[in-house]
Amino acid sequence: MRALIFDLDGTLVDTVYAHVFAWQRAFAEAGMAIDGWRIHRRIGMSGGLFTRAAGRELGRELDPQEAAALQERHGELFAQLLPERHPLPGAVELMRFLRANKIVHGIATSGSRPEINASLDALGIDPDVLVIERGHVLRAKPEPDLFLACQQRLGVRVEDCYVVGDAVWDLLASRRAGMLSIGLLSGGYGEDELSRAGAFRVYRDALELLHSLDELGVLP
Amino acid sequence: MRALIFDLDGTLVDTVYAHVFAWQRAFAEAGMAIDGWRIHRRIGMSGGLFTRAAGRELGRELDPQEAAALQERHGELFAQLLPERHPLPGAVELMRFLRANKIVHGIATSGSRPEINASLDALGIDPDVLVIERGHVLRAKPEPDLFLACQQRLGVRVEDCYVVGDAVWDLLASRRAGMLSIGLLSGGYGEDELSRAGAFRVYRDALELLHSLDELGVLP
Repeated sequence: MRALIFDLDGTLVDTVYAHVFAWQRAFAEAGMAIDGWRIHRRIGMSGGLFTRAAGRELGRELDPQEAAALQERHGELFAQLLPERHPLPGAVELMRFLRANKIVHGIATSGSRPEINASLDALGIDPDVLVIERGHVLRAKPEPDLFLACQQRLGVRVEDCYVVGDAVWDLLASRRAGMLSIGLLSGGYGEDELSRAGAFRVYRDALELLHSLDELGVLP
Repeated sequence: MRALIFDLDGTLVDTVYAHVFAWQRAFAEAGMAIDGWRIHRRIGMSGGLFTRAAGRELGRELDPQEAAALQERHGELFAQLLPERHPLPGAVELMRFLRANKIVHGIATSGSRPEINASLDALGIDPDVLVIERGHVLRAKPEPDLFLACQQRLGVRVEDCYVVGDAVWDLLASRRAGMLSIGLLSGGYGEDELSRAGAFRVYRDALELLHSLDELGVLP
């Protein structure tokens, strides 16, 4: 019995560019200029790693208060900039298909409730679908904790799980967890970046994945 | 005598993610959801091609008034979202170095004055540096017109020009113009996407290019 474990932002909902821009504005407001593409390539890693990496770009470490203030401002700006959530193409249909066909699946995200509620609502995720969020584990991606927690709660074996994600952090975390992974271009990475990070397959988006489930051997 | 022809947005100034997000909001306000990554991969192509491609995503053609309204709203949102302009790392130093060492160079952008003035100011571009903008030619990228107009005004031969850009549209236009091209990652494309589109070299940003000018045979 195979299982699919999904990342959320950039994989099922179209939020990556709003996150990038909200971070860029939060830094700019604090007088710190960080290149958009460097932020983009770090979306989806843990907040702690993110601010440490940002500090390296700026040439000095950010102290914990500063990091917390940036994170809070990012959250405010994100909510203002993107009041609604758009599922990525095929995401709603894919979730519905997995459910209807009793294919084991769950979501494992670096985000937290209540921030992710709007995304889950937009996707029409049933309340009994397993969602592992940041607060449920000690360490976020690229550590494997989120995916391993999801696998354990789903009651499947590590080697039977596929991780589906849009960022190299998802793919790295899945390798650390001992799971196969599938990359989606819908978060804005290039195909080759995802393949080189270990993706077994790369699809454009959830819609192409839905039409390619045969290739993965997850259909009953 | 070799010459360097530069793209502006994403190559010298950090504006790509603000452009992506401004387009995404302009479409969302008009009730049209277009994935962020698809907008990202089309930044830098001509506005006409862009709205035609957007129409294909939406499954219907946009009429000229609709396209013009979207373009105007994008401009307003962009100005609100990004009141200041940040040069990308090394961009100011690179421009200064080329000038000091009398290496022939110019800028060829799909943007137009007065919108691009803030970017040129942030870069400290001297008023006598050649800037070819959208209105100077009939067709924008990926047609070669902008680069060919720049080359002709610089008084150099096509085969002596390098185009420096962050998007596959720059690289495609440079090939159509018969020029070599250099890709920069600072617009958020992956390295492989730029190499496959024909970039002779790919650097992280203008700073790495500045430190790599030896490799290009442009130093006097």
